[in-house]
Amino acid sequence: MTPPVVGELAENRVGSVQQVLVALADPVRLEMVRRLRNAGSPVPCALLYDGINKSTATHHFKILREAGLTERLVVDGHTHQRLRTEQVNAAVPGLLDSVVGTANREVGSS
Amino acid sequence: MTPPVVGELAENRVGSVQQVLVALADPVRLEMVRRLRNAGSPVPCALLYDGINKSTATHHFKILREAGLTERLVVDGHTHQRLRTEQVNAAVPGLLDSVVGTANREVGSS
Repeated sequence: MTPPVVGELAENRVGSVQQVLVALADPVRLEMVRRLRNAGSPVPCALLYDGINKSTATHHFKILREAGLTERLVVDGHTHQRLRTEQVNAAVPGLLDSVVGTANREVGSS
Repeated sequence: MTPPVVGELAENRVGSVQQVLVALADPVRLEMVRRLRNAGSPVPCALLYDGINKSTATHHFKILREAGLTERLVVDGHTHQRLRTEQVNAAVPGLLDSVVGTANREVGSS
């Protein structure tokens, strides 16, 4: 059974390691990726940020998507973001574990 | 026996994972770190970059140093940069292996 997902499935490849680092180096985007990684499943967009407006968030989602880190899905009529974990791990092995593991420790949530 | 090293030994801690990502996300600095990691020992500054002038390189070295990634040493009268491998690995486990390993594959040198 496939989940009831309609929407844009990213076909773009994960970017170069330098492009991926640029995508992760912003504090807002790092927090988005941290939440996505910890969730382990698609997350409604609005749950991925605090303290910024929707258009700023959309800008950051676009940068993550263009780097190949995330893709956008529509689940039950609501836009979600999904981390492309498998593809990112294949492109830059160990990066997500390293970065999110450290970010989690810094936030004190692990 | 300690090596004949005179100079500034960084006492600063490694920065947050976000600060480290910013330091690595620039192509010039990523290449500097890649060469330092591959060398495994202090490297004369001039061997760590191509195509930029010395003052630009100094700026990039400063950002790496302030993030706690590198330190500056004087060996036999020549300024070298050293990667603070142990400290970086303790602060962000796995990051150097992941990033430099991928950068090496992209450059085709490994």
